[in-house]
Amino acid sequence: MVDLEFLRKLVVPAETKIVFLVMDGLGGLPIEEGGPTELEAAQVPNLDALAKRSVTGCTVPISAGITPGSGPGHLAMFGYDPTRYVIGRGVLEALGIDFDLSPQDVAGRGNFCSVDAERRITDRRAGRIPTETCAKLTEMLQAQVKLPGVELFVKPVKEHRFVLVLRGVGLAGDLTESDPQQLGVPALGIHPLDEAHDRAASQRTADLVNEFTAQARQVLADQHPANMLLLRGLDKRPALPTMQEVFGLRAAAIAVYPMYRGLAKLVGMNALPSGTKLADEFDTLERAWPDYDFFYLHFKYTDSRGEDGDFTAKIKMIEEFDAYVPRVMALRPDVVVVTGDHSTPAALKSHSWHPVPTLLHSRYCRSDDVEGFSERACVHGGLGVLPATDLMPLALANAMRLTKFGA
Amino acid sequence: MVDLEFLRKLVVPAETKIVFLVMDGLGGLPIEEGGPTELEAAQVPNLDALAKRSVTGCTVPISAGITPGSGPGHLAMFGYDPTRYVIGRGVLEALGIDFDLSPQDVAGRGNFCSVDAERRITDRRAGRIPTETCAKLTEMLQAQVKLPGVELFVKPVKEHRFVLVLRGVGLAGDLTESDPQQLGVPALGIHPLDEAHDRAASQRTADLVNEFTAQARQVLADQHPANMLLLRGLDKRPALPTMQEVFGLRAAAIAVYPMYRGLAKLVGMNALPSGTKLADEFDTLERAWPDYDFFYLHFKYTDSRGEDGDFTAKIKMIEEFDAYVPRVMALRPDVVVVTGDHSTPAALKSHSWHPVPTLLHSRYCRSDDVEGFSERACVHGGLGVLPATDLMPLALANAMRLTKFGA
Repeated sequence: MVDLEFLRKLVVPAETKIVFLVMDGLGGLPIEEGGPTELEAAQVPNLDALAKRSVTGCTVPISAGITPGSGPGHLAMFGYDPTRYVIGRGVLEALGIDFDLSPQDVAGRGNFCSVDAERRITDRRAGRIPTETCAKLTEMLQAQVKLPGVELFVKPVKEHRFVLVLRGVGLAGDLTESDPQQLGVPALGIHPLDEAHDRAASQRTADLVNEFTAQARQVLADQHPANMLLLRGLDKRPALPTMQEVFGLRAAAIAVYPMYRGLAKLVGMNALPSGTKLADEFDTLERAWPDYDFFYLHFKYTDSRGEDGDFTAKIKMIEEFDAYVPRVMALRPDVVVVTGDHSTPAALKSHSWHPVPTLLHSRYCRSDDVEGFSERACVHGGLGVLPATDLMPLALANAMRLTKFGA
Repeated sequence: MVDLEFLRKLVVPAETKIVFLVMDGLGGLPIEEGGPTELEAAQVPNLDALAKRSVTGCTVPISAGITPGSGPGHLAMFGYDPTRYVIGRGVLEALGIDFDLSPQDVAGRGNFCSVDAERRITDRRAGRIPTETCAKLTEMLQAQVKLPGVELFVKPVKEHRFVLVLRGVGLAGDLTESDPQQLGVPALGIHPLDEAHDRAASQRTADLVNEFTAQARQVLADQHPANMLLLRGLDKRPALPTMQEVFGLRAAAIAVYPMYRGLAKLVGMNALPSGTKLADEFDTLERAWPDYDFFYLHFKYTDSRGEDGDFTAKIKMIEEFDAYVPRVMALRPDVVVVTGDHSTPAALKSHSWHPVPTLLHSRYCRSDDVEGFSERACVHGGLGVLPATDLMPLALANAMRLTKFGA
């Protein structure tokens, strides 16, 4: 990939509009050898028709064999080198609940969990308590935990998940996590990573976080199943240039889930009120159409059903999405990209490293021989197997938003 | 790509011959959706037959979505990283008219232009004055403009275009341009770029160039339509290792247009007298055959007709070129590459970012399933979608000019 500084110098103004339609975890695998993937089994007449008029390929989110988390998968798709810009999970969650993180804040993702009398974890998600319970518990923590010299925010997200933010001078990330990712053992103490950039600041922050956990244990003692908490991904927000700065785009995000809205905001997108259903998202797209140059529309449930291992349900989600494609095309976008941030094969019940079937349609896309939208077909596409970070430069070029390099 | 230092260590001597047949701006687009590209519409029986016996692919000159100028497009094709070696347009033009640039010279590309009484530009090309007028005007400037402490050269190129060279110690490039690239406004003053490496030297050079422009305005005052000039791409020549040094090749360029001859000389090729027509170029190839290991044969008019937006005329140019392919094959070259430095689709009337259909034939090329030479077909080729900088290592390998890496 070319770097963002290189690209920034080539950006020119234009009136064109770009849409990224993102089915989370789109790429799949056959559930039995020789069979179709989820996308290949799905009836997607609209995507097939669009693929015929598009240039297609398979995007590699990070690098061959590397399975991306949601953060890196999205950054790559938005044109940012995901190995250079690393986003803590806490930061994503904080942005996703519209928490206004300042550059010196340290944010972590919290899970309420269940522990037994010996403090051993019995349920890492506290039985997925209702969000209202989560809100009540975070209020208790906010009111009763006191840390010396820093401001503290404890905010509910959804079900058992919350965000912890420490605000003050001299804090740092580069911390381990208290979640041992297994049952039957106690929560871990948090300490600076070996590679911490500012060890003293990381140690101070670790001490504060451990003190938070100790006090929280007291506060939650009688709140079974949510009688303890686990913290992950404690870090500051990375200094990402915005899509306006590097691509010259007024960019909008249409996403229901907090984390994806948060990620989009981190690269400078406006996260639009997007309702709760897929239909709401496309309503939002139509309403906001005049106001932005770039739209990122995110559909979560392809990934969710893949994570569930539900092959058939993932097919249904893909088919549901397909039905909305004509509404997008009716807006006459200059460039449409259909892709995913990574693969989530039901056969693996998790994110995976597999390339993601991708199409790009524009007046100037130079369509290839590919006749339908699927993993097997897109391998033969005109984009070949390409880094996901190439998508943004390609979209900008097709939108006539890049001038030539050199004389 | 591997870097040139890496490659240099693997180069071994051989008696083999490599030919690069370059149709400038070869890649195209359908003029109407679903239709053929220029190359797909062209009747190219010789190239089709050669593609069948070749390994094919589509080259990406710079990076996905990036449209190259002629300089970067050619450097990439010759195996040089075009983002590392940046060539000012003035340098290219100077080399193209056989001007012997020394390493400390600063060269700029000049356009004679027309201005009104308020010095506002009314024609950036002065009505494309005849080359003889250009020669007369540059002689006037050469005779009458005097700059303190530096030697000055003003040389005609073609029509309204000329080259300005400043020779002296302590000069530098990294300068802005006086051409505002629009009408109705005056020429701009020239000053150092923000990122200038030697700001003092760039400032001194800018002062001299601005003084040149001021004196030139007096000299040209009565020479309407060419009563003013604009300067672009003022820079020194980059320090490029030669093809002899890095590839061990005695290399010859066969090209009619000055800029391409200049570029070839910059990487150490001998620019052979090439006549004015395509037939002259192939005559030159045959004549020079015994004397070189590598031939770059450049055909300009595929690009020119693409820039004109003339789809049908570009097809004719491709067909004209095709007819000469048997003459090349009759020479029994060890390696033949047919490619372009970039795409110039008639649909865009400009260079574009699209990959370039490319074939490589040799005894050892491992031919693929591709049955004809076209954008759609080459996507399925054995080279896939590849960086243009990979072509030279592939050509060297096929010519048995690279030894193995490592034991």
